[in-house]
Amino acid sequence: MRFEALRRDVKTKARLGVCHTAHGSFQTPAFMPVGTQATVKAVTQEELRELGYDIILANTYHLYLRPGHELIKKAGGLHKFMNWDRAILTDSGGYQVFSLGDIRKITEDGVKFKSYIDGSEHFFTPESVIDIEAAIGADIIMAFDECPPYPSTYEYAREATQRTHDWAVRCKEAWSGKQALFGIVQGSTFRDLREWSAEFISSLDLPGNAIGGVSVGEPKPSMREAVEWTAHLLPEHKPRYLMGVGTPLDIIDFVMLGIDMFDCVLPTRLGRNGSMYTTYGRINIKNARFIDDFSPLDPECDCLVCRNYTSAYIRHLYKSEEILAARLATYHNLAFYQRVIRGIREAIAADRLADYRREFLSKYSVGAELKQETVS
Amino acid sequence: MRFEALRRDVKTKARLGVCHTAHGSFQTPAFMPVGTQATVKAVTQEELRELGYDIILANTYHLYLRPGHELIKKAGGLHKFMNWDRAILTDSGGYQVFSLGDIRKITEDGVKFKSYIDGSEHFFTPESVIDIEAAIGADIIMAFDECPPYPSTYEYAREATQRTHDWAVRCKEAWSGKQALFGIVQGSTFRDLREWSAEFISSLDLPGNAIGGVSVGEPKPSMREAVEWTAHLLPEHKPRYLMGVGTPLDIIDFVMLGIDMFDCVLPTRLGRNGSMYTTYGRINIKNARFIDDFSPLDPECDCLVCRNYTSAYIRHLYKSEEILAARLATYHNLAFYQRVIRGIREAIAADRLADYRREFLSKYSVGAELKQETVS
Repeated sequence: MRFEALRRDVKTKARLGVCHTAHGSFQTPAFMPVGTQATVKAVTQEELRELGYDIILANTYHLYLRPGHELIKKAGGLHKFMNWDRAILTDSGGYQVFSLGDIRKITEDGVKFKSYIDGSEHFFTPESVIDIEAAIGADIIMAFDECPPYPSTYEYAREATQRTHDWAVRCKEAWSGKQALFGIVQGSTFRDLREWSAEFISSLDLPGNAIGGVSVGEPKPSMREAVEWTAHLLPEHKPRYLMGVGTPLDIIDFVMLGIDMFDCVLPTRLGRNGSMYTTYGRINIKNARFIDDFSPLDPECDCLVCRNYTSAYIRHLYKSEEILAARLATYHNLAFYQRVIRGIREAIAADRLADYRREFLSKYSVGAELKQETVS
Repeated sequence: MRFEALRRDVKTKARLGVCHTAHGSFQTPAFMPVGTQATVKAVTQEELRELGYDIILANTYHLYLRPGHELIKKAGGLHKFMNWDRAILTDSGGYQVFSLGDIRKITEDGVKFKSYIDGSEHFFTPESVIDIEAAIGADIIMAFDECPPYPSTYEYAREATQRTHDWAVRCKEAWSGKQALFGIVQGSTFRDLREWSAEFISSLDLPGNAIGGVSVGEPKPSMREAVEWTAHLLPEHKPRYLMGVGTPLDIIDFVMLGIDMFDCVLPTRLGRNGSMYTTYGRINIKNARFIDDFSPLDPECDCLVCRNYTSAYIRHLYKSEEILAARLATYHNLAFYQRVIRGIREAIAADRLADYRREFLSKYSVGAELKQETVS
């Protein structure tokens, strides 16, 4: 993988770039829809392409458990298995093992956990995770890390950071070099741990660097600190990925701090729950005011859903528990995110990202956005 | 609505025709996907068009209860509400009132029933149903009938048939003439009642005629008898619609008896349940033999799903309870039905429908088809 930083915004740390992978190029800043189980829930791969997405994320933890990385390998890799010919990034399962997994034991060697599907016991080590990610065959793979919960004690956070560093070294050693391996900065909410981690991970000289351990329930200012403390320590000439973030406003704000890549379940999960992003803020389609609203979800959106269907119809589908409600809401929300990402890119190209943020907020209901929980 | 019978198969009673409606024409024999709640479950209206469907069915009973016919009227009718610019047929709610409804009382005047959504009480009369169907605004509307269960006593079936006739007369009187009103033949499994009903309904001289009260749990030979006894009594120059039928083989067989229109939940419901139609019979994607089957669901199908996705992938989606499984399975099954319907039309045009049936069965697993329950 090759990363080209094309332009740096004059007034902020935002960058415009492009990543070249074996499965096409994607522009940065980039948002990656989450395709946990080899599908971005409720949309097809054709629709993702139509929406302009050039990279998606898949979860190693889930795919390892079902259908299994060996089956995916047998299919010729995840791209072939799911028929997606553009870039894929797989996380390392670290976050899932620590958040979903019924953890049995953490040792220096790795983590023993129980499957959320059938209770069977499994053991992840840095080496086994790199092997699994190789079998899955994504273009970008993440190092196996330990993601401490929020809040964590300083002591535990320090130990987890140390283990994350040791494991990153072992991941690098186990790595074939064929996929682009990204290291992950940890350190919880502690400045010295975060700075130490950013410096250590950068020193490994991997193709890209990520900030992890955010969007785990901490308040927004803490998330911001974790990025402010570390982003500038991560090398300029490599992509910086903020894991599990975030709302549209988060994305604008963190692009301004020099982040290039994002992933988040918000547009897809909220869509399935009947919450849609619009130019004027997030709306809840269950609200009675949409009963006879025969206008589109977002009057400024030109996506297929907004061109063809009304809020009243989508509300009816939602109240009737129809699959089409999840489809239309997800498609629209992914179109909204893509529109924001494109707006960000155009603004950086024109050296006016701060203006773009102001214009975005002048219409968007900040209240709604700030009330929104962090979901990862 | 105008029906043109274009051609009659030489060896069978099959006809090739075309119905001209205010929302475009549809060829017959026609299969109508079921869009109970103003959506054919799991697919979009754009996909239905792409699949070649020119007419769909919607359920008056469901739409009356939710979102309500007044809202649909306010939206400009069902076509506008759901953004479907081709033909729509609404059933009368008769079948649903008698099968889903918690019936409180049947009188000569109408039926009092409880909503399956909230238990509220409602009263349908022939006149109110015609008004509701007018508000919904379908191109073809069905008369309000009483659909007796299987089995029924002769006495009850006779009474229900008499009521169906009385109600058909009242529907005709309440009808504005703007939509195409079809009468419904009842009579359960009794030959004299079926013949009496076919003659009476035909005598009303409505734009089309339907055979109802089939596909209610009776054995296949009884369903066939109901059609054999009545189809030839229904006028040649008007479309004949067999309600709630059927499997692909049923459709071929009943086209041979002179039926022009069909609707059935099988392709959509079975798809959601992981059962897909193929040239070689129906398959259950849950079956372990598909775990590593990297070929399409049906090697002879050129639908989008078969071009882009493998059985192994769809099985994984199904096992993972992903919405995309329902989408892909439904799309494929509707493509299969459309392929059969087109095969039937081409065969009639070439005077070789009996050959088409033989060719279809030579590949299709009859065993699987015959084991299939009747679902309506």
